Amino acid sequence: MFFLTPVLVAVVCILIVWIFKNGDGSSKRRKGEPRARAEVHPWVDEDLKDNTDLHQGEEDANDWQESEEDVEHIPFSHTRYPEKEMVKRSQEFYALLSKRRSVRFISNEQVPMEVIDNVIKTAGTAPSGAHTEPWTFVVVKDPDVKHKIREIIEEEEEINYLKRMGRQWVTDLKKLRTNWVKEYLDTAPVLILIFKQVHGVAASGKRKVHYYNEISVSIACGLLLAALQITKVYLEKVAFTSSLML
Amino acid sequence: MFFLTPVLVAVVCILIVWIFKNGDGSSKRRKGEPRARAEVHPWVDEDLKDNTDLHQGEEDANDWQESEEDVEHIPFSHTRYPEKEMVKRSQEFYALLSKRRSVRFISNEQVPMEVIDNVIKTAGTAPSGAHTEPWTFVVVKDPDVKHKIREIIEEEEEINYLKRMGRQWVTDLKKLRTNWVKEYLDTAPVLILIFKQVHGVAASGKRKVHYYNEISVSIACGLLLAALQITKVYLEKVAFTSSLML
Repeated sequence: MFFLTPVLVAVVCILIVWIFKNGDGSSKRRKGEPRARAEVHPWVDEDLKDNTDLHQGEEDANDWQESEEDVEHIPFSHTRYPEKEMVKRSQEFYALLSKRRSVRFISNEQVPMEVIDNVIKTAGTAPSGAHTEPWTFVVVKDPDVKHKIREIIEEEEEINYLKRMGRQWVTDLKKLRTNWVKEYLDTAPVLILIFKQVHGVAASGKRKVHYYNEISVSIACGLLLAALQITKVYLEKVAFTSSLML
Repeated sequence: MFFLTPVLVAVVCILIVWIFKNGDGSSKRRKGEPRARAEVHPWVDEDLKDNTDLHQGEEDANDWQESEEDVEHIPFSHTRYPEKEMVKRSQEFYALLSKRRSVRFISNEQVPMEVIDNVIKTAGTAPSGAHTEPWTFVVVKDPDVKHKIREIIEEEEEINYLKRMGRQWVTDLKKLRTNWVKEYLDTAPVLILIFKQVHGVAASGKRKVHYYNEISVSIACGLLLAALQITKVYLEKVAFTSSLML
């Protein structure tokens, strides 16, 4: 009676310390030139940290020149659907997406790799902070590698349950009947590991900030989920709780 | 020649300090009972912070009992498409999604509210940490409110450009020809503000942790973008850079 699902999506993040340079006053004013007001809202700074420590470091603005071609705005045109059609399409998409479930018993049925490629390409159409596209998708099919990943994830999950998350976490998850044993990581024919790139590397070898990397990668995950649901490749255990060092 | 888009999506986050209780050793071992290993990976803890400060506080486990009904696993069945059909659907969805653009000139054309309702409901189908659904969607149509929002966002954006983000940010964005002036916040007929709920409130009035709230909300944003693209309600400036206190 339990549900079968061939693909598992593990949202797996690797955190690398990244360098962030706070404004040093040398940045020039642009058009409009109003004065920056004094009251900076602290939660905006919090958001910007993007889950990582901010380290103020010295950077040379020339390191970033490479990306500074003079790109033109690209004209964009489209035809709208009639209103009725818009409503109909939005209803149908909602009906389809609302059938998505976080299933916990996963089939070993194979999925065409072309589908995996397409859903990952779809995820890659996501918007990202300053168009840094701070994501890496890794497709794993090898049983040994899958098993190693399972071991690492279970180890971290166990710590979540026993130590890291505390009593409320355990209570909240009780009704979901989950634990840290992730058998499906062996069962699923394909694992898609999703890494956030906390920073990139400039041609000079210096680190290049990826703004809002966690938000960007998570939006890409949303598109991935939609694509999987569209193809009815059911999917999926989105494992928020896992981190992995390859 | 410039592109017209009727709907603006502003990813707007409100940060509320939330209480996080670290495990105090009183959480019981569950099935399997392996010992937690000593080496906790620090980046996992970083991820868990979810962009906010962790405050260890005293909580009473009874506060969370309310959510502890005995929920059954729900049997799930589906029929798979034939492989060819799966590939075709994944290709078509990719083709459609790859046409999405972060447009910066937005039309004032109206959009049926039914469509707005449906795309938000679609976003709400996203998975979330411990199924906390830590999101609030606010639809704004009133011109005065839209303008106030614009003022707040521009103020923060200006600080981003001038102080907060530093020279690299300004350089990276140069090629995108963006600045902190967001005229489209007045122009768009509808703003969808998306808030992350950093914590919930239990019946007792105590704060209830929302695990992985930023990742969860951002995945929901991904589904929202997909839904808007499906309905060809073009959409959108996703403003990562804004925070708002209503």
